[in-house]
Amino acid sequence: MSDAAAAASEEGQATSKKGLKKQQKEAEKAAKKAEKQAQAAAGQQGSEEEDYAKDHYGVPPMIQSQERVDRVLVRVEELAVKNADQKLWVRARVHTSRSKGKQCFLVLRQQQFNVQGIVAVGQNVSKQMVKFAASINKESIVDVEGFVRKVDQKIESCTQQDVELHIEQIFVVSMSDPKLPLQLDDATRPENDKEEDGRATVNQDTRLDNRILDLRTTTSQAIFRLQAGVCHLFRETLINKGFVEIQTPKIISAASEGGANVFTVTYFKTNAYLAQSPQLYKQMCISGDFEKVFCIGPVFRAEDSNTHRHLTEFVGLDIEMAFNYHYHEVVESIGDTLVQIFKGLQTRYQTEIQTVGRQYPAEPFKFLEPSLRLEFPEALAMLREAGVEMGDEEDLSTPNEKLLGRLVKQKYDTDFFILDKYPLAVRPFYTMPDHRDPKTSNSYDMFMRGEEILSGAQRVHDPELLTERARHHGIDLEKIKAYIDSFRYGAPPHAGGGIGLERVTMLYLGLHNVRQTSMFPRDPKRLTP
Amino acid sequence: MSDAAAAASEEGQATSKKGLKKQQKEAEKAAKKAEKQAQAAAGQQGSEEEDYAKDHYGVPPMIQSQERVDRVLVRVEELAVKNADQKLWVRARVHTSRSKGKQCFLVLRQQQFNVQGIVAVGQNVSKQMVKFAASINKESIVDVEGFVRKVDQKIESCTQQDVELHIEQIFVVSMSDPKLPLQLDDATRPENDKEEDGRATVNQDTRLDNRILDLRTTTSQAIFRLQAGVCHLFRETLINKGFVEIQTPKIISAASEGGANVFTVTYFKTNAYLAQSPQLYKQMCISGDFEKVFCIGPVFRAEDSNTHRHLTEFVGLDIEMAFNYHYHEVVESIGDTLVQIFKGLQTRYQTEIQTVGRQYPAEPFKFLEPSLRLEFPEALAMLREAGVEMGDEEDLSTPNEKLLGRLVKQKYDTDFFILDKYPLAVRPFYTMPDHRDPKTSNSYDMFMRGEEILSGAQRVHDPELLTERARHHGIDLEKIKAYIDSFRYGAPPHAGGGIGLERVTMLYLGLHNVRQTSMFPRDPKRLTP
Repeated sequence: MSDAAAAASEEGQATSKKGLKKQQKEAEKAAKKAEKQAQAAAGQQGSEEEDYAKDHYGVPPMIQSQERVDRVLVRVEELAVKNADQKLWVRARVHTSRSKGKQCFLVLRQQQFNVQGIVAVGQNVSKQMVKFAASINKESIVDVEGFVRKVDQKIESCTQQDVELHIEQIFVVSMSDPKLPLQLDDATRPENDKEEDGRATVNQDTRLDNRILDLRTTTSQAIFRLQAGVCHLFRETLINKGFVEIQTPKIISAASEGGANVFTVTYFKTNAYLAQSPQLYKQMCISGDFEKVFCIGPVFRAEDSNTHRHLTEFVGLDIEMAFNYHYHEVVESIGDTLVQIFKGLQTRYQTEIQTVGRQYPAEPFKFLEPSLRLEFPEALAMLREAGVEMGDEEDLSTPNEKLLGRLVKQKYDTDFFILDKYPLAVRPFYTMPDHRDPKTSNSYDMFMRGEEILSGAQRVHDPELLTERARHHGIDLEKIKAYIDSFRYGAPPHAGGGIGLERVTMLYLGLHNVRQTSMFPRDPKRLTP
Repeated sequence: MSDAAAAASEEGQATSKKGLKKQQKEAEKAAKKAEKQAQAAAGQQGSEEEDYAKDHYGVPPMIQSQERVDRVLVRVEELAVKNADQKLWVRARVHTSRSKGKQCFLVLRQQQFNVQGIVAVGQNVSKQMVKFAASINKESIVDVEGFVRKVDQKIESCTQQDVELHIEQIFVVSMSDPKLPLQLDDATRPENDKEEDGRATVNQDTRLDNRILDLRTTTSQAIFRLQAGVCHLFRETLINKGFVEIQTPKIISAASEGGANVFTVTYFKTNAYLAQSPQLYKQMCISGDFEKVFCIGPVFRAEDSNTHRHLTEFVGLDIEMAFNYHYHEVVESIGDTLVQIFKGLQTRYQTEIQTVGRQYPAEPFKFLEPSLRLEFPEALAMLREAGVEMGDEEDLSTPNEKLLGRLVKQKYDTDFFILDKYPLAVRPFYTMPDHRDPKTSNSYDMFMRGEEILSGAQRVHDPELLTERARHHGIDLEKIKAYIDSFRYGAPPHAGGGIGLERVTMLYLGLHNVRQTSMFPRDPKRLTP
C-alpha cells in the first residue's frame, strides 16, 4: 500500500518510451563511465599487453533482476578454517584497500564482520586485475570469488582472524563515490583513544547528516539491533502476561493535556494535533474491556528543549492495565517487564553490548529483582541528607534526579529503581490522589542511571472526580468530553505508564545522547534526513 | 515518560489542599448519591424491617488503592463444573439483569465470556439485597461472591453453560450511567438476523461515536485480538528470517513523493509533513547495511477519499530487503510472510474467527502455499476475456481488481495472489524498470479477496537512474536530495513493500469496512474519539 498513493498521484504522467530509453541510456553511460574510470589504471599500462583475466573483473550492468543467478553467496561471518581451500562467492563492501606491488589487500566488510582479501598476480589474476581491484572506491559493494586460505598468523584487524580470501574474480555491484563525507574508522574510534592522541573523530552533526554511513559502523549496527531487542523483549514479556497489542491514532482532534507543547496539523479544512501520548486511547481500551494493553509507536512533543535527552518525536512503549484493588499490582507488572528486558539484553545481546562498549566504555547495567521501590519522602530525605534543599511538594529537578540515582546506586547497588507516590501537585490532572493524604498521589516514575525513563500513575476512573480534577487544572472540559465520557459506562480501576524507547537504549548502554539511539532523530533544530 | 510533558506543563498549578478536599468530598457525595439511588428501592419497603444482609451488598468508596485486598478473583471463563459448590469471588460487568419475585437473575460478562448469576432471598440474602442487585445499571462492574452450582439444563444464552453462580455478596466497583447510547446485544446482532425481523441494529457512526461500548462486544474483542495476532505473526516470521525491526520518523522535512496528499505540520518556525510511508527510511537502512528490515507504524494520507477501504491514518506493516540477483527473492519472502500470517491466524485464532463469523458470516479465507504469482499481462488477458476493455499500460480500477479477484478465485481457488510486473507508467518514480521491456517494471501488488493489501517494487538503487526517473516525474530534485544521496556510497539492490494492517484484518475476516478493523478510525469526516 505504501506505494499506492504515490502511484495514484502520478497516474497521469505516462512514461513516454523515448524518455525512458533516454534515461536508461544515460544510466548505462554513467555505469560505463565508472567502469572506464576503474579500468583506466589497468588499461594505462596494459593496452598492448593481452589481459588474460579480462573476464574475471569489471563493473557489470546495474542489477535490474535480469536473471536469477544460481550462486550461493557465503556470509563473511561464516568464513572460517572449516572452509579452508574451498572456492566460494562473497558479497561485501570494500572497507579498505591497499596496493603493494603485484598485490592488492582488501578488507571486505559485511555488517559487523570483516575478512581480509588478496588479489595477487598469478595464473588467473593479471596485473590489470590487481590495478582494477586497487581502484575500487571504499564502501563499494563487490562480488568476489576466491579460495579460503588458512593463515599462519592471526589477522588482528579483522573479525575473521584465521582465514583470508584469495580472490580470483571481482565485480562491482555498486560503486561508491570516491569521496566519503566521513570515514567509518573515525566514526568507530573509541571515546578514550581520541582524547589521547588527537586522531580524527566525527562530530554528532556530521554523523547524523550522513546517517547512512554512520549506521554502517559496528557500533551503530549493535545499538539498533539491541534497540530492536528492547521492543521484542517488551512485547514478548507482555504477551506472556496476557496483554493485547493495540494501535492508537496519532492525529487527534483536541490537544487534550492543556494545549502546550503540541504540534498542529492542517487536517482538510480544520486543525488537528499530534498525540503527545497514546494515553487517552489506552485508557479507552481499558474501558472497552481489553483489561491489559500495550502499544509501541511515535509520540510527539513540541518542546523547544535542546538537551541530550529530549526529542520532538520519540518512540513510546506504552502499557495500561486494569487492576483489582491496588495500583501496585501494575507497578510490579511494569517493574518486572523492565527486569525481563534487562535480563534478556544481558543474555541475548551480549555481543552488541560489548561492541558498543569498545567505543563507549560503560559500567555494566545493574538491577535488582524484584525492583527497588522507593517512596517520594524517602528520596527527599536522602537528597536532603546530601545537602539538597527541597520543598515537600516540589518536583525533582534533572540534577536532583541524577544525584538521587547516584545515592541509590551507592546504597542499594542498582541502576534501576521505581520512585513512587509523587506529590499530587506536580502530576497531570488524571492522576489518582492518594486516599490517605490529599497532597500525595498514586503515581510513579522509573529511573535508569538517574534518568527518568517512565512516568505513570493510577488514573482517575471516576467521571465526577476526573471532571473536578480537570477543572482544578484549568482544562477546557469541552475539549476532553469524550475522554471523561469514556468512564461513564463502568470503568475498572487502572494504571499504566509510558517508556521512552530511545532513553532505555541509551541508558542501558551508558551512552550520553539520545540522538545516538534514534536512527533519524528529530529535535527543534533537526528535521533531516 | 508519557505523563512528563503534561506534568511539566502543569507544574505551576500547585494543588491547594482545600480544592482537593472539596473535590474528593464531591466525588464521595456523588458515590453516596449513586449508592442511595441504588439502595432506595431496597429501603422503600424495608425501612422498618431489619436487613440481615446489609453488609453483603452496596456501593463501597471508589477504589483508590486504599489497601491490597488478599482476594482471588476467578475468571468467568474458568467457571465450570470442576468448581461446583465452591464459594468464590468474580469481578464482571452486569450484562443484563431481570427480577422475578424474590430472585434476580444477572448475566455477568467478562470480555467474551459470561455466566448466569442468581441473587435469591434466603438465609444470607435479604429482600433488600435482591432489590439492590436488580437496581444495578447494566454495564456496571461488580464484585460478587457466590457458590458455583451445576445446572440441570444447559444455559444456552451464556458461554458458561453448565454452571451458575448463587450470589451471596454483591458490591459495585464502578456504576454505569443508566442510559446507554447503544445496546451491546444490538451491536452484536448477526448481519442476517437483522434483515429478517427488523430488530434494532447499531449504525456505524453510533458505534464509532461510542467506541468504548462497541469495543466490549464479543465481535470487537475478537477482531482486535486477531489484529494483534497479525502484527505478532508478521514480526515473528520476519525475525525468524533475520529481519531487524526499525523505527522511522513520522515528521519529515519534505513531501518526498510529489507533495500531493500530504498533511502539513507546524514545526516551530517552519513547516513539516507527516510521512506517507516509511519507505525512504527503510531504504536508508538498507544503504546503512541492515540488509533486511521491517517496521510497524502509522502512515498518513491526506486523501479526501470517503470509501470503505481508505483511512487518512492507518497502520503500515513495512518490509525492505536487500537481495542478491533478482527481486523475486523478496517477492517470495513477502509472499511467504503473508502465508505464515494466514496459517497462524487459522490455527491460533480460530475462536476469534468463529466469533466474528457469527455476526458477519464469511467464507473461510483460502490461500495457496507457495503463493500464486501472476504477471500483469496474464491478468489483463483474463479481464479482457471477461469483457473488460483496458489498455496495456493502464492501471487496474477498483472494480477491475475485484473482478480479477473473482476470476482468480474461480480459476485457482485462492483468495490471495501476487500480481507482478505492473506497467512502469503507473508506478512511482523510484520503481525499477524492467531490463527487457522499458514499459514494464519490477513491481507488484498483493491482493486479498480482490482488494489490494500491499504494493511494492524493486527500487532504483542507482543515484543516476533515480535522478533521471525523478526528473521524468517532475519531482523537485532539491527536495529529495537526501534520498538520492543515500545511494551514492554503495547500495545493494533491494525491494520491499508496505502492507495495510486494517485491510488485512478486514479482508481475512471477510468484513466490509476498514473502520471495523481500526479502533479509532480517521477519515476526512472523523477525527474523534
